[in-house]
Amino acid sequence: MAPREKAPPLIAISMGDPAGIGAEVILKSAAVLARRRGAPALIVVGDLSLMTETARRLRSRIRPQAWKPGEPVPGRGNIGVLTVEPLGARARRPGKPSVEGGDASFKYVVEGAKMALSGAAGALVTAPISKQWWDRAGHRFPGHSELLAHLGRSRRWRMMFAGDHLKLALVTVHIGLARVAKRLTRAGVLDTIVLLRDHMRSRLGVARPRIGVLGFNPHAGENGLFGSEEIRVIAPAIAAARRAGIDAYGPLAPDTAFIRTKGRFGFDAAVAMYHDQGLIALKTLEFDRAVNVTLGIPFIRTSPDHGTAFDIAGKGAANPSSMLAAIEYAATAARTRKD
Amino acid sequence: MAPREKAPPLIAISMGDPAGIGAEVILKSAAVLARRRGAPALIVVGDLSLMTETARRLRSRIRPQAWKPGEPVPGRGNIGVLTVEPLGARARRPGKPSVEGGDASFKYVVEGAKMALSGAAGALVTAPISKQWWDRAGHRFPGHSELLAHLGRSRRWRMMFAGDHLKLALVTVHIGLARVAKRLTRAGVLDTIVLLRDHMRSRLGVARPRIGVLGFNPHAGENGLFGSEEIRVIAPAIAAARRAGIDAYGPLAPDTAFIRTKGRFGFDAAVAMYHDQGLIALKTLEFDRAVNVTLGIPFIRTSPDHGTAFDIAGKGAANPSSMLAAIEYAATAARTRKD
Repeated sequence: MAPREKAPPLIAISMGDPAGIGAEVILKSAAVLARRRGAPALIVVGDLSLMTETARRLRSRIRPQAWKPGEPVPGRGNIGVLTVEPLGARARRPGKPSVEGGDASFKYVVEGAKMALSGAAGALVTAPISKQWWDRAGHRFPGHSELLAHLGRSRRWRMMFAGDHLKLALVTVHIGLARVAKRLTRAGVLDTIVLLRDHMRSRLGVARPRIGVLGFNPHAGENGLFGSEEIRVIAPAIAAARRAGIDAYGPLAPDTAFIRTKGRFGFDAAVAMYHDQGLIALKTLEFDRAVNVTLGIPFIRTSPDHGTAFDIAGKGAANPSSMLAAIEYAATAARTRKD
Repeated sequence: MAPREKAPPLIAISMGDPAGIGAEVILKSAAVLARRRGAPALIVVGDLSLMTETARRLRSRIRPQAWKPGEPVPGRGNIGVLTVEPLGARARRPGKPSVEGGDASFKYVVEGAKMALSGAAGALVTAPISKQWWDRAGHRFPGHSELLAHLGRSRRWRMMFAGDHLKLALVTVHIGLARVAKRLTRAGVLDTIVLLRDHMRSRLGVARPRIGVLGFNPHAGENGLFGSEEIRVIAPAIAAARRAGIDAYGPLAPDTAFIRTKGRFGFDAAVAMYHDQGLIALKTLEFDRAVNVTLGIPFIRTSPDHGTAFDIAGKGAANPSSMLAAIEYAATAARTRKD
């Protein structure tokens, strides 16, 4: 007897800033997914007029359809669009960001998060917004992650990046490098390890992930010769994680950690101490396919690893690889999900 | 009329710690080079007995021959060995470092540097030494570079790393990451750019190299939002370099700088602000082929990018790729050299 196939998960996608490339990369990704069996059903939280105009401009085979909560979900090859508030014509011009568009892009994320929080959607994928235009519209959040953590009432959350081969979580993110050393704490490193292990287990189905933890200094400090963060902070956090039953090890020398012996890393996922330590490796190895994942919030959220790209919006030139990877990652996690 | 072929350059190779893998990777590299036309002539500054014993153990086709300054250089397929002081049997045991061996490995570098300084050798390649055993033998230099800078009377020198595709120089190297911000100065960044340009021009024949200069902070600081080192230090150093006629540009966002658009970097060589910023990219992309180069000394010096590896010495298991690349890089630079 063949195993019964699970229904494909429903993925909510917030459309991002209407003047950016969000609608375009969503439509291009949907066109790729339309050819695949078991592809997820897609609901865009955004604006039907803009999605339709963009599909026409791209000569896409995808036909965006109006959708409302409770209605049947459009089948493979189509996408449903939940219009939050119809955008005016001025806010729909590619490459011309506006306060109306900034405000709308904020509401798309809030509505998408509600769908994910209620279980109506299996995951949320967010297309790029402009922090500057959120700010001009009066929304004081530095980015998606902070807003989603607020909506999900999460005090501990982290940014994770995932490529086809390399997955890593960051202890610190958008602060000056000179300030990182002071921000590194045992609790901060330990929390990152725990959140990454939880994600690997409950979203990706890796029962006992091997988690490699990077050092902070050259050669991981060489026994204190080049800095003491490994001795004071990182090694104790790893020891605490191990006591909690997590297969964490390190501190690894950062420059050799990303060498793939026999085509594989020595770990299933890594913890990096600062932004560029992780992202130099990730972007160098897996540029087009890198996905941003938020750890520590009560639903699955991914996003492509690029911005609004106002400069190329409306030209049909945007590369959908990262959005496609973000949708695929979200769909895999939604299927695997065990909470 | 066919152009007259230049005589292949003479490369001096200091043998490194006698208990390490130096002799082995030299012999394995020589065996590869023996099959190539125009390969450089090789003189090992070290110990003939150890070279001969190692060749026998490896069943190498290479027959090390005694050589002294002024004598004809052995032809392709052989190597000359300048014995500095014959090593005792105890100092020749693989994997068993000794004070005698540490002392000898220091003298090999001094003699090799003399050959390069006098012009008797076109370049010096150094096999790995143990800083610890230099220290026990009473030689207080933290490494090759400091000793060579001392012998060459160089006040400004830098470490450079070169792979087949990526070449980069480091502004700071072996210090704790928390101290790097305080060490970054305009003069330090500018000197690195100038030394790298000089090397690219006079050793590699790139008349006007494009030099990409990395930022220090995430997103290169995002206009001061995440740190001010780009504004205060790096951008002014780049401007000064440009005023001096150098095609330097940046500060580049570190995480995207190493993405190869259409298979190429946007620069011929890069300047990185700290150890792991450069070496995470280099080792991830070009592990086996990375070569260490010293900039700012009055002769060409390269070395493989690995250590003595006492733990695998004498087993025949050492990978010669990096030593081979170091010899090839030195030979290319010696041929191209314009001082």
